[in-house]
Amino acid sequence: MRELLQEVRHNPLLWLLAFVPVVFAAQTLRPEASVLLFVLSVLAIVPLAALLSHATESVAAKTGDSVGGLLNATLGNLTELIIALTALRAGEYMLVKASVAGAIVTNVLFLLGMSFFLGGLKHHIQEFNRAGARLQAGLLLLATVTLILPSAIAKADSSAGAMVSRLSVGMSVLLIVAYALGMWFSLKTHREVFASAESGETGEAPWPLGVALVTLAGVTVLVALVSEVFVESVQKAALVFGMTPAFVGFIVVALVGGAAEMASAFAGARRNRLDLSVSIALGSASQIALFVAPVLVLVSYLVGPTPMDLLFWPGAVVMILVATVVTAFLTSSGRSAWFVGVLVLMVYVTFAMTLYLLPPRTAGPGSPGTHAVSEGTRR
Amino acid sequence: MRELLQEVRHNPLLWLLAFVPVVFAAQTLRPEASVLLFVLSVLAIVPLAALLSHATESVAAKTGDSVGGLLNATLGNLTELIIALTALRAGEYMLVKASVAGAIVTNVLFLLGMSFFLGGLKHHIQEFNRAGARLQAGLLLLATVTLILPSAIAKADSSAGAMVSRLSVGMSVLLIVAYALGMWFSLKTHREVFASAESGETGEAPWPLGVALVTLAGVTVLVALVSEVFVESVQKAALVFGMTPAFVGFIVVALVGGAAEMASAFAGARRNRLDLSVSIALGSASQIALFVAPVLVLVSYLVGPTPMDLLFWPGAVVMILVATVVTAFLTSSGRSAWFVGVLVLMVYVTFAMTLYLLPPRTAGPGSPGTHAVSEGTRR
Amino acid sequence: MRELLQEVRHNPLLWLLAFVPVVFAAQTLRPEASVLLFVLSVLAIVPLAALLSHATESVAAKTGDSVGGLLNATLGNLTELIIALTALRAGEYMLVKASVAGAIVTNVLFLLGMSFFLGGLKHHIQEFNRAGARLQAGLLLLATVTLILPSAIAKADSSAGAMVSRLSVGMSVLLIVAYALGMWFSLKTHREVFASAESGETGEAPWPLGVALVTLAGVTVLVALVSEVFVESVQKAALVFGMTPAFVGFIVVALVGGAAEMASAFAGARRNRLDLSVSIALGSASQIALFVAPVLVLVSYLVGPTPMDLLFWPGAVVMILVATVVTAFLTSSGRSAWFVGVLVLMVYVTFAMTLYLLPPRTAGPGSPGTHAVSEGTRR
Repeated sequence: MRELLQEVRHNPLLWLLAFVPVVFAAQTLRPEASVLLFVLSVLAIVPLAALLSHATESVAAKTGDSVGGLLNATLGNLTELIIALTALRAGEYMLVKASVAGAIVTNVLFLLGMSFFLGGLKHHIQEFNRAGARLQAGLLLLATVTLILPSAIAKADSSAGAMVSRLSVGMSVLLIVAYALGMWFSLKTHREVFASAESGETGEAPWPLGVALVTLAGVTVLVALVSEVFVESVQKAALVFGMTPAFVGFIVVALVGGAAEMASAFAGARRNRLDLSVSIALGSASQIALFVAPVLVLVSYLVGPTPMDLLFWPGAVVMILVATVVTAFLTSSGRSAWFVGVLVLMVYVTFAMTLYLLPPRTAGPGSPGTHAVSEGTRR
Repeated sequence: MRELLQEVRHNPLLWLLAFVPVVFAAQTLRPEASVLLFVLSVLAIVPLAALLSHATESVAAKTGDSVGGLLNATLGNLTELIIALTALRAGEYMLVKASVAGAIVTNVLFLLGMSFFLGGLKHHIQEFNRAGARLQAGLLLLATVTLILPSAIAKADSSAGAMVSRLSVGMSVLLIVAYALGMWFSLKTHREVFASAESGETGEAPWPLGVALVTLAGVTVLVALVSEVFVESVQKAALVFGMTPAFVGFIVVALVGGAAEMASAFAGARRNRLDLSVSIALGSASQIALFVAPVLVLVSYLVGPTPMDLLFWPGAVVMILVATVVTAFLTSSGRSAWFVGVLVLMVYVTFAMTLYLLPPRTAGPGSPGTHAVSEGTRR
Repeated sequence: MRELLQEVRHNPLLWLLAFVPVVFAAQTLRPEASVLLFVLSVLAIVPLAALLSHATESVAAKTGDSVGGLLNATLGNLTELIIALTALRAGEYMLVKASVAGAIVTNVLFLLGMSFFLGGLKHHIQEFNRAGARLQAGLLLLATVTLILPSAIAKADSSAGAMVSRLSVGMSVLLIVAYALGMWFSLKTHREVFASAESGETGEAPWPLGVALVTLAGVTVLVALVSEVFVESVQKAALVFGMTPAFVGFIVVALVGGAAEMASAFAGARRNRLDLSVSIALGSASQIALFVAPVLVLVSYLVGPTPMDLLFWPGAVVMILVATVVTAFLTSSGRSAWFVGVLVLMVYVTFAMTLYLLPPRTAGPGSPGTHAVSEGTRR
């Protein structure tokens, strides 16, 4: 417990933990104040995600390399997974899909672009290990291509609609198998390729196992409870702010859920350790595509009001594809400078602007604004 | 003749030659048993393709470098060409186009993915000559972009439909000119770039010229006759197996026609000669795009019931593009490991699953299932 | 003045200056002879563009590095900008957009392909500085992705149409900010990356400042006047030649406006200085995307009959994307040979053939042939 308090004192991000009790108080006292609840839940999730991340790493550090790696790889995007599961249970499929797509895009464009930019402000030209980055970028490219393929084909081929749900289940199984093989690859047979990234991912000292496990369990419950508030309030708050559900899922959820990883990646870039930033970005995005997305599809058969498919709305497919191809190209060059970061961030801002301006509720069946409604009430 | 028998004894694949007489017997005795005829014709084409491949190489080895290279480059995909011509004469344009698209995708994804996987099981990290692979990947990228461009533009621009057949003829002439220049390039001016791949493409000894020429002529006739049975039976057999014509053309024909090349590529990968595998994959796919496809368009004006255009259905365009871009990226890194192979194969399996699940006969005019019908009866 | 005459004597391209008075005479005497005026104005613009280019460089050489670089970067595509502004004032938005898209595609495909081809005829394998080319190719990739994103999303998402004009303004501001930062990057913080390209961009001696400034002012006026004739005559001339407005804007305007840069790039390639050719191609295309296009959008609010958006017709999006991705891939390899040039040119010819065959006036709202009309008369 002392370790936890010490951590809180040293990490200003964790001062936001004060908002956790506030959000529950506000929910009890003012359950109709959606905007307030939305803002408070966002402020509460950020430090919880950081704690979750540190607890996972501490458990991983204590349980040995293989189990630890497994834990890190599985729970690395735990916050995103919990938020998405909460949205899934509420039948908010548009939010789920937008947060999956947004987590991939945010990890590769915002996290990487900001790392290039912040690192570039301090260092003239930054070089990073091309060989490792290329292998990881190749994995990410293949993972995202597989993820968006059904959507691309369904869009291209109007007759394909009927078979999408069957294809989604098949694909999900395939993606999870690939994910398991990928862990075997990165933790057993080829761990040296990924080694530089994992060592010293944080400068912080690991906690004792007991503290870490209790924190992990406790914080997971807290994240789940706050996510509940977040998902309930987000739709109404979005209307007030003039934000589309697509914007909220794609940008807000992704930024909130990934805050902890971003802090590590930016710190790495400032210390001229761009290998670390690139590895976090590519690894985290791959994990969303190979693990989080298919798990959500399969779980939707158990908890959702109706099964969810892997069909993203066409704009999201374009964004995921552009983000991945741009990243694959940029990371394969092995060099960066501040202006590269500016341009990557510009693509991200363009995405955000587009999503913000999208009409929130329209008649077209393919529009993101209507998914949540049409799918939630499909039965 | 002794060489032929010796080859048959040493190569288990050639034992399948026994199915050649069986398929003709079955056609005479049970002309209505489509499924049986389909399976038998597949089993008969595989060893014939292997013989054709070896005969071509033997003639090439005897006739000197330039003529030999020309022969190898022209007849390297002879099996695919004969099957496609048979389908063309029967007016099965969907099957023709699917087999062209499938041959490109199968060569780059299945052949390359399996080579990476099989080679990676034996060797930790495999390196290959980046410079040669990049030049060849560049050629393939440009060739496939040209091939799919009319389809992409016609899809993007609904008004473009009327001009597609004129564009297809112009493009075909352009592709064949590029192919001729490409042979001049690879056999005359820049042969050293492609040299490593051609030398020792097979561990087998070449046959005497007489045996090779007789085999070439005889086996070509046999492949043509068996292809006749194959094309006749495939549609009905596909219905029984629940396979779409797109799946049959894209996956089955491509795997059957490319069996011989695959054997060489996999053997090369196991012997840690990944240069050879990459070169076979990229060269063969380029040949389909630059030579086989335009020849089929031009020949369709002579033998088909109605001219064929270069317009692929949209899903095929997406698949060709994804396959080529992924390949260009992967081969440009110059390194491989088993998991890269797994992910490449995963993309291929995704394509196969999608094609298998596509509704076989639907109302939409853009669907692959209807092309064979609508185009065959267009007059 | 003597310098100007000397330049004219040494540069055969400038003999075409004789057509400048001829075009004005013809306009007065035969205002209805559209085809004649079109041909004459094309012949007159080519040498004026070359003069403009040399005058800009001379001013740049005299005013010191920073201001000079700024001038070069801003006025490098002045001819394209003037023609596009003239077309904008006439409300010919289809021509404006086609010339923007065409300038990007022509710079990367025709200029680069011809440089590879001409250089390759003289030199067996040409190598160029990969590191610089990659950084520039990355910038171009990001710039064009941002430029075409609204179109791609509007195409993918039919509900997005309403927000395109607001998005276009936002994007234009963003692109110009990125352009300004990019100049800061290339002229101040990282000038060494771009250095090799700027030094000795022309073998010609710079003019005295007075001559250069007078030439700059005078020729700008002349280009504007000739552009007026060109834009007025081009539509009717296109009908006579059977050319679509898309073809004229995409191919003719781009080739005419870029003649001077092409001459420098080809000369560089022949002297085995492919770095120079690559840098001109990538730099010029980036400038169109980051500066010319957004300026035109913003200016359209002042001078056009109705605001112009950044929405390109879908075929143009496909072409820009293909051109940029192909270029990024090819320039990242750092090697070239003549056949690479042939294939790049083949892609360009394919684009030209497609645009030439496009139906000039069709019913579909998305077709390029109707943009000029529908947008010009939208009020």
